[in-house]
Amino acid sequence: MGEIPESHPRRSSLLARQKLVDAAAEGLLADSAMIAHGRGEAFDYLLGEQTSDSARSAIREASARLLTAERPVISVNGNTVVLAGEDLIRVAAVVGCPIEVNLYYRTPERIARLLTRLAEQRASVAGGPAPDGWSEDWAKAVSSVALLGDGADGSIEGLEGARAICCTNGIGSADIVLVPLEDGDRCEALVEMGKQVVVIDLNPLSRTSRMATVTIVDEVTRAATALVDEVVSGHAAQGDWDNRAALSEALDIIAGASAGE
Amino acid sequence: MGEIPESHPRRSSLLARQKLVDAAAEGLLADSAMIAHGRGEAFDYLLGEQTSDSARSAIREASARLLTAERPVISVNGNTVVLAGEDLIRVAAVVGCPIEVNLYYRTPERIARLLTRLAEQRASVAGGPAPDGWSEDWAKAVSSVALLGDGADGSIEGLEGARAICCTNGIGSADIVLVPLEDGDRCEALVEMGKQVVVIDLNPLSRTSRMATVTIVDEVTRAATALVDEVVSGHAAQGDWDNRAALSEALDIIAGASAGE
Repeated sequence: MGEIPESHPRRSSLLARQKLVDAAAEGLLADSAMIAHGRGEAFDYLLGEQTSDSARSAIREASARLLTAERPVISVNGNTVVLAGEDLIRVAAVVGCPIEVNLYYRTPERIARLLTRLAEQRASVAGGPAPDGWSEDWAKAVSSVALLGDGADGSIEGLEGARAICCTNGIGSADIVLVPLEDGDRCEALVEMGKQVVVIDLNPLSRTSRMATVTIVDEVTRAATALVDEVVSGHAAQGDWDNRAALSEALDIIAGASAGE
Repeated sequence: MGEIPESHPRRSSLLARQKLVDAAAEGLLADSAMIAHGRGEAFDYLLGEQTSDSARSAIREASARLLTAERPVISVNGNTVVLAGEDLIRVAAVVGCPIEVNLYYRTPERIARLLTRLAEQRASVAGGPAPDGWSEDWAKAVSSVALLGDGADGSIEGLEGARAICCTNGIGSADIVLVPLEDGDRCEALVEMGKQVVVIDLNPLSRTSRMATVTIVDEVTRAATALVDEVVSGHAAQGDWDNRAALSEALDIIAGASAGE
């Protein structure tokens, strides 16, 4: 798509788009991944392309729940790996949890390619600086992050076919799953299995957003960066979480943008 | 993306998505075409996936202007050909104007492929039934639609590089251009050349929407189908056209959806 000037007001959005175009060419994404990204772009545009106060609260809530869970897991798909893989590896290193590649349109080739990409990202993150506030051995914490998804041996109840496949030692036995960019059916199935589900979804009206335990209405790259800060800070939960109120605040922002406020 | 059940409430949206996935595989689309489609999907979702009253007024206004123009032209890109090619050929047959393939990310291969696809669509439309209300020789009218874009010899003033290229006997000398799914820079350049510009754009806040003479805030497939009916009916213009009011009405619908109305 050509060079993007440093000064372009929508530079981060255009860079994200370019990353996805490149990833599609490398076979990392499902056919419809770019369409899904475009839907997100439109909602992010209406949200002002910034993390709202209510999204920030949701990120803090997600962090507190991940840190206090017994068996947290981060589930990633192609778009998530491409846009936020490194920061989610940082989150996993701090939380001490595995990352599972779990795909709606599952193929062994894409699982393998995404695991390879994640392993590269993990090596890069391990060799880089620790997040501010982290005082332990960073390279060791990062290198300990297990990357799951290959040889998946479990299944998500209530789903059919390839989209039900998961890892027993990952999503299968998790008590909380962070699933950025998840689809509604799977979000619902995970909730019905009794798991807490944290999603990152730019559409506050989507079924995923409405089904989740905690919905972060934010762009996945920004949300993952903010989540790194939160898990390092280690704030406790803020009391009862009202997910409906969080969605309502996101809708107010969109309605405000549409009303020209 | 698998079978789409006849009863699926969002069947037309899913079929459109599948058409684009197929077209991308055939090399008809630019890298970012599916992202652009996704953005449109999100806005259409907020608009209720139906043609609003104000979009219908814009379609009627566009029809009246196309029918009374000296040199109307329909400019199409990959997404437009794939999603609305046949209906735009019907419009061109009734109006008696050429269709020009004009691409933001122009390559000779994509121009050639899209012209081939349009020629196939033209043959199919010519062999099919005339629209209700048409009494002349349909096959002849359709076969007369010129398909331009190859060997482009003109340029759109105020633009640089390949995106400025156009046909002198098409966009170059047009007094009105129907450009579904246009980008803001080109829309602005065409307006600055003194042309009337009719766009079809699902985002009422986009620069394209705000720059155009007449903005149809509607999904391109639905809008093109409605436009066929309008040009056959041949209604006159409705007096002064207030494009700002049309955009404002679309924004009200989106704000209403976001407010849960």
